[in-house]
Amino acid sequence: MTQIRKIINDPLYGFIDVYNDFILSLINDPLFQRLRHIQQLSLSAMVYPGAVHTRFHHSLGVMYLMQLCLDELRRKSIEISELEYESALIVALLHDVGHGPYSHTLEHSLIKEFHHEELSLYVMKQLNEKHQGRLDTAIAIFENSYHRKFFYQLISGAIDVDRMDYLNRDSFYSGVVEGSISVHRLIKMIHVSNDQICFEEKGVLSIENFFFSRKIMYLQVYLHKTVVGLEELMILLFSYLTNHIETFPESFISKHKVLQLLSYSNNKEKTPDLIQTMIHLFFELDDSDVWYLIKDLSSFEHDSIACYLSQCIRNRKIYKSIKNPNEALRKELYEGLNLSETDPKIKPYLLIEKSILFHLYDHKQPTFIKFKDNSLIPFEQHDLMREKQWKNEVYPLSYLYYQPKLK
Amino acid sequence: MTQIRKIINDPLYGFIDVYNDFILSLINDPLFQRLRHIQQLSLSAMVYPGAVHTRFHHSLGVMYLMQLCLDELRRKSIEISELEYESALIVALLHDVGHGPYSHTLEHSLIKEFHHEELSLYVMKQLNEKHQGRLDTAIAIFENSYHRKFFYQLISGAIDVDRMDYLNRDSFYSGVVEGSISVHRLIKMIHVSNDQICFEEKGVLSIENFFFSRKIMYLQVYLHKTVVGLEELMILLFSYLTNHIETFPESFISKHKVLQLLSYSNNKEKTPDLIQTMIHLFFELDDSDVWYLIKDLSSFEHDSIACYLSQCIRNRKIYKSIKNPNEALRKELYEGLNLSETDPKIKPYLLIEKSILFHLYDHKQPTFIKFKDNSLIPFEQHDLMREKQWKNEVYPLSYLYYQPKLK
Amino acid sequence: MTQIRKIINDPLYGFIDVYNDFILSLINDPLFQRLRHIQQLSLSAMVYPGAVHTRFHHSLGVMYLMQLCLDELRRKSIEISELEYESALIVALLHDVGHGPYSHTLEHSLIKEFHHEELSLYVMKQLNEKHQGRLDTAIAIFENSYHRKFFYQLISGAIDVDRMDYLNRDSFYSGVVEGSISVHRLIKMIHVSNDQICFEEKGVLSIENFFFSRKIMYLQVYLHKTVVGLEELMILLFSYLTNHIETFPESFISKHKVLQLLSYSNNKEKTPDLIQTMIHLFFELDDSDVWYLIKDLSSFEHDSIACYLSQCIRNRKIYKSIKNPNEALRKELYEGLNLSETDPKIKPYLLIEKSILFHLYDHKQPTFIKFKDNSLIPFEQHDLMREKQWKNEVYPLSYLYYQPKLK
Amino acid sequence: MTQIRKIINDPLYGFIDVYNDFILSLINDPLFQRLRHIQQLSLSAMVYPGAVHTRFHHSLGVMYLMQLCLDELRRKSIEISELEYESALIVALLHDVGHGPYSHTLEHSLIKEFHHEELSLYVMKQLNEKHQGRLDTAIAIFENSYHRKFFYQLISGAIDVDRMDYLNRDSFYSGVVEGSISVHRLIKMIHVSNDQICFEEKGVLSIENFFFSRKIMYLQVYLHKTVVGLEELMILLFSYLTNHIETFPESFISKHKVLQLLSYSNNKEKTPDLIQTMIHLFFELDDSDVWYLIKDLSSFEHDSIACYLSQCIRNRKIYKSIKNPNEALRKELYEGLNLSETDPKIKPYLLIEKSILFHLYDHKQPTFIKFKDNSLIPFEQHDLMREKQWKNEVYPLSYLYYQPKLK
Repeated sequence: MTQIRKIINDPLYGFIDVYNDFILSLINDPLFQRLRHIQQLSLSAMVYPGAVHTRFHHSLGVMYLMQLCLDELRRKSIEISELEYESALIVALLHDVGHGPYSHTLEHSLIKEFHHEELSLYVMKQLNEKHQGRLDTAIAIFENSYHRKFFYQLISGAIDVDRMDYLNRDSFYSGVVEGSISVHRLIKMIHVSNDQICFEEKGVLSIENFFFSRKIMYLQVYLHKTVVGLEELMILLFSYLTNHIETFPESFISKHKVLQLLSYSNNKEKTPDLIQTMIHLFFELDDSDVWYLIKDLSSFEHDSIACYLSQCIRNRKIYKSIKNPNEALRKELYEGLNLSETDPKIKPYLLIEKSILFHLYDHKQPTFIKFKDNSLIPFEQHDLMREKQWKNEVYPLSYLYYQPKLK
Repeated sequence: MTQIRKIINDPLYGFIDVYNDFILSLINDPLFQRLRHIQQLSLSAMVYPGAVHTRFHHSLGVMYLMQLCLDELRRKSIEISELEYESALIVALLHDVGHGPYSHTLEHSLIKEFHHEELSLYVMKQLNEKHQGRLDTAIAIFENSYHRKFFYQLISGAIDVDRMDYLNRDSFYSGVVEGSISVHRLIKMIHVSNDQICFEEKGVLSIENFFFSRKIMYLQVYLHKTVVGLEELMILLFSYLTNHIETFPESFISKHKVLQLLSYSNNKEKTPDLIQTMIHLFFELDDSDVWYLIKDLSSFEHDSIACYLSQCIRNRKIYKSIKNPNEALRKELYEGLNLSETDPKIKPYLLIEKSILFHLYDHKQPTFIKFKDNSLIPFEQHDLMREKQWKNEVYPLSYLYYQPKLK
Repeated sequence: MTQIRKIINDPLYGFIDVYNDFILSLINDPLFQRLRHIQQLSLSAMVYPGAVHTRFHHSLGVMYLMQLCLDELRRKSIEISELEYESALIVALLHDVGHGPYSHTLEHSLIKEFHHEELSLYVMKQLNEKHQGRLDTAIAIFENSYHRKFFYQLISGAIDVDRMDYLNRDSFYSGVVEGSISVHRLIKMIHVSNDQICFEEKGVLSIENFFFSRKIMYLQVYLHKTVVGLEELMILLFSYLTNHIETFPESFISKHKVLQLLSYSNNKEKTPDLIQTMIHLFFELDDSDVWYLIKDLSSFEHDSIACYLSQCIRNRKIYKSIKNPNEALRKELYEGLNLSETDPKIKPYLLIEKSILFHLYDHKQPTFIKFKDNSLIPFEQHDLMREKQWKNEVYPLSYLYYQPKLK
Repeated sequence: MTQIRKIINDPLYGFIDVYNDFILSLINDPLFQRLRHIQQLSLSAMVYPGAVHTRFHHSLGVMYLMQLCLDELRRKSIEISELEYESALIVALLHDVGHGPYSHTLEHSLIKEFHHEELSLYVMKQLNEKHQGRLDTAIAIFENSYHRKFFYQLISGAIDVDRMDYLNRDSFYSGVVEGSISVHRLIKMIHVSNDQICFEEKGVLSIENFFFSRKIMYLQVYLHKTVVGLEELMILLFSYLTNHIETFPESFISKHKVLQLLSYSNNKEKTPDLIQTMIHLFFELDDSDVWYLIKDLSSFEHDSIACYLSQCIRNRKIYKSIKNPNEALRKELYEGLNLSETDPKIKPYLLIEKSILFHLYDHKQPTFIKFKDNSLIPFEQHDLMREKQWKNEVYPLSYLYYQPKLK
């Protein structure tokens, strides 16, 4: 570790230390700085005005929590080499570097070919080349090909530093205090046994709290009906744009890199070169490009549908929503839409349905607790838990959105 | 007050109640929603990554604090009519509605003719027309023509709800906890005497704390040397763009509303119609337009100066800074700049000087404390204060920024 | 409401306003001031050193939350008269005034005849007499004889202001952040329908959070194995003292009011006069009397058992504990106790067993949610809940404590 | 460092780690456990009901902050041996172990011969003997005889871990948020230069904030006029008891260890044996002994003065107070006291005067800042400070308390 002493203010954790010069150089790389302009929660800020924090800050927070975990594990005599230590910090820092504008909302709309984690990997490899292989171990951990699997679990498990930071941070910035978790207690309880991340037995209630706080954040924030409604509008808009991009005038497309990407995206056969161009273009984008496009479309007389959808998003013309609609209601609404004064082309966009499944807990990613005799059990088998409660615990959500009138 | 019950989460205050339907309609107006896309602290987020909160949220917070003040004053038997109550809330809500992209940084760069308060007034008048004069009293308060002056002081005094919210909110989001103030204690102490806002005597230390917290926020956040350095680069860029707008290709200008505004701005004679067009254009803009422009300029080969300055801002190529430079140092730096490999046109932009005066306390806006016998004195005359300390208390800051090398 | 403006600092809520002069006089009454010297959590502070807050502060907090509820209900057009308003505040303030030293731990040890709520009622009646019947309505509410039942539910329901304050306050002072609840959100959701306290439907996750936070506070703080172990020692000591009080020298008894109370307590036939004397004596006591006694007993050579138990408590000689002991283990421990060097009289006190049932949710006190169509259902029937999970949800806890060695 | 992992919840800092088994054994020593029953702020809780935290918790907090400082200094390449590290933690833990009941209030009333720091040293030496010299270095640091002086400054300087914890903790528990400081930022700035504790230059505003927060805590909490008034009553009572102890019946004195100590205290000639007995007795005492005595005295008909003063304290019969009284007012009050119905012996106790000097900053203990070139200057010479402001900055407080009527 070098002599630099770079600290970054964080309202959640006080101060985040930057471990060394190399990590500082990764933070300063334009590919990472770009995350300053991508909000963590996309359209949730439309309902929770405080929730405007960025992927940039979240990534720093994940790195901070990773460092706490590593220090705690070392304190418990788990050996972690200097290379592993730095590499784990790097994975934490860069795990979301592949996110594009409006994060999850547009994840499959802008560049269908890749999941954001593949794009993160892409960036890591770019940076690895630039830095003569110093990210080799970080990449191995991220790809889960590193031989000590617990490092991967730290960044990608049921209770990992990524989730810990985002639940905590999203709760903090949205003001939904009931979604807060005790990251510090969870981390005091963390351990490794047989290359498996686990938590000391007396942390069992903290684990339960983690999953119920997660439920609150999903049902109240991420899947808030208004947020979902706006996201659906945006996804609809981008799907429409993709399908009709050839009808847009060249002069308009040339104004918007987002549209250029969509037009490439339509190509049936994608050569490696084209893919390369698309990825390059993708990493030029951030939230401002999408918002700039939506504002421009909202007065774009050339296309009434794109214009209508953009206006809805821009001016927060929120559709009314019905939870768990039945068939009769659905039919009534379809017929009841007052369309006389409306452009008939818009009609299909006045009713939107969306179904989502929320999983409280995923059995494929068990969370283990460790007793003093070093035995491990899935936490749901502890006698303060009710095992059945955690079985197949799925909450289906179904919404019907409709625009009652157009002004 | 009607039966609606609209509450908005706020990490600072818990929940903000929307007082009635009319105020809700103002919040929902596109002119106000626009503030969602204007960050409160402009480029400070480049140093404090948490400080990405918006004018939208700040405005709601100011309205909330205004409501607390009004309730407290009523509790102390100050009569406030229903019309005054609603109007004061409206003034609080709309006081910043005239802010443009990058707030104070670009305040005098985008539209020189008007201060942001004049533009706020412009919007209020627009809304007043739309709502058949319901904002008459609000406008009178904002213009300080309302006969009960204390309402104006609540929104525009040395310790007003605007400052209370922004110090508190900026401290919270930046993580600079030492800048926090106790808004709740200040408001418990608030009173009106002879139409003058004042504070009960036992609040005197809260007042002192307010001014010293303000000092911290100014010197550590708003006027942080890196923030000022980036702001100067942006002001320089916009000044350059304004002066050279005619050299930019029409196709490029037509892509960017910001540039259109700058080109209008250059017109020597401004007809009322042109002014109208400019204002209309101005209110189309938010932070995304400016950032979109900066990103576009950063690869704009047509103009090396605009391109260079944009790259610096975008990629956070921070100049080195020297505090209180002396003449010798200044000279040495000018001569020492290694310009051999650099485009000579950029040379004038490699050294920037900036001087600022920070005022701890403004004697033209005294803050009064009220004794139990109802007498008022300026707080600095209280025996727990040192009057001299508050006299002419000015802190001059002077920075020299230079770019040591160009890559 | 009069012109006084008495505010009390509270780290949880900022400031607590005292509603009027009459309530201020109740707070200043020695019977209420006495609560300053009774800790809220009795021996929990032995494990959570921050949890030293008092019944006094808790009672003020309950009054504060009651005021928030009443204001919210008025905002929702539930009519509440001035008399009801004041009375509800008084009930909240005085609900715990009957608590004695070491609260729940010694509730049945010092004065078996009465539950603390009966003693609270006793004090309220005393104060009512002193104040010419001004507490009539408060007493009716507290006895649940007032015709509008929802007032009683506010202070004594599954989710009432008492529980809200103590969960929140105990969580805050103990530092067990996972036990915190959002009192402000719950109160924003509160409503009355058909004289029944209920919560708006969108508060359903806050209700779930309330019960799971309560589970954490019970299992981690109130029923923490070390806390229970110390409480059992103290109960054992007081039971021993009661049964052997006649063997103590008069001079020792006369030093300690607590012992005088225990000696009265032993009387087989209790005349009304004796009861009166006992109650009077009881209200002279606070935590300091009990601690003073324990310290005195810890060097009391006259009685080796009382001395031993007191030393254990005073010096925190914590017994080892085994959860869910089986018969074999139990037997082994009995036999294994190294008693050779120990006073044989102490032997029965070296092993303690304790079983407790924790109820997650009590079906006899359902919590209702209210839909927009005004229909009510028990919250556990909401589709975001799992009804079965809330059925018969009982957690049995069983501990065996043993003292491995005596020094 | 051993394998134990003992963590203690702290609402301020989250969790406090106990460094090793030896420190755990010190915490478990009855001499340290005794601090659980001594409140940090003595009678301040009478005004700030949340401020009931203990010397026990404060001592743990100081140890925690010491650990943060040591880790930060090691990070900055200041060499600290394992022995120094442990010893510094021990000094922090035990620095207040000599405090008696009601801390500072009764510091000079119970045992005049020693300052609390001498008594802390006494306990350290006791423990050192018990532990075969393991506290040698800790004692050297505490006595400031250790050759590396900066360790002493860490625990006893103008900005030391003791003050940092108590300002922060007292602010937190009292709810006087304006008194909070950023311990974390101060500690990030800490450094050692030439064996002198100093702070990096960019911490200068944190230092200013520290001293102004301290001013708030002193003037608003520690020296709050009601707190001072109650303390004066208590000091008066103890002075009276000391002077009249021989008039109290032996049976009463034998009930109260505090009175036994006072009677020893009266002895003109104190043999080493007597001193030893007194110290031993002193360490038997905690707040409960004093409160138990005050309650007993409040119904002690034998002595009307002791009885009167005790009632005032117990029942919070607060005297009225006048700030900066002038001679005329003083005379008027003396003459105006309605004493006709009062026991004439009480007359001298109905008027109390108290003058205090509060020092904002002590020039004999300068606080240094360190520039990047390693030069040190007193912080008040920094250009963001006003040197004059810190010169001779003394605030005299003068109160006259009087009891207007006796019931």
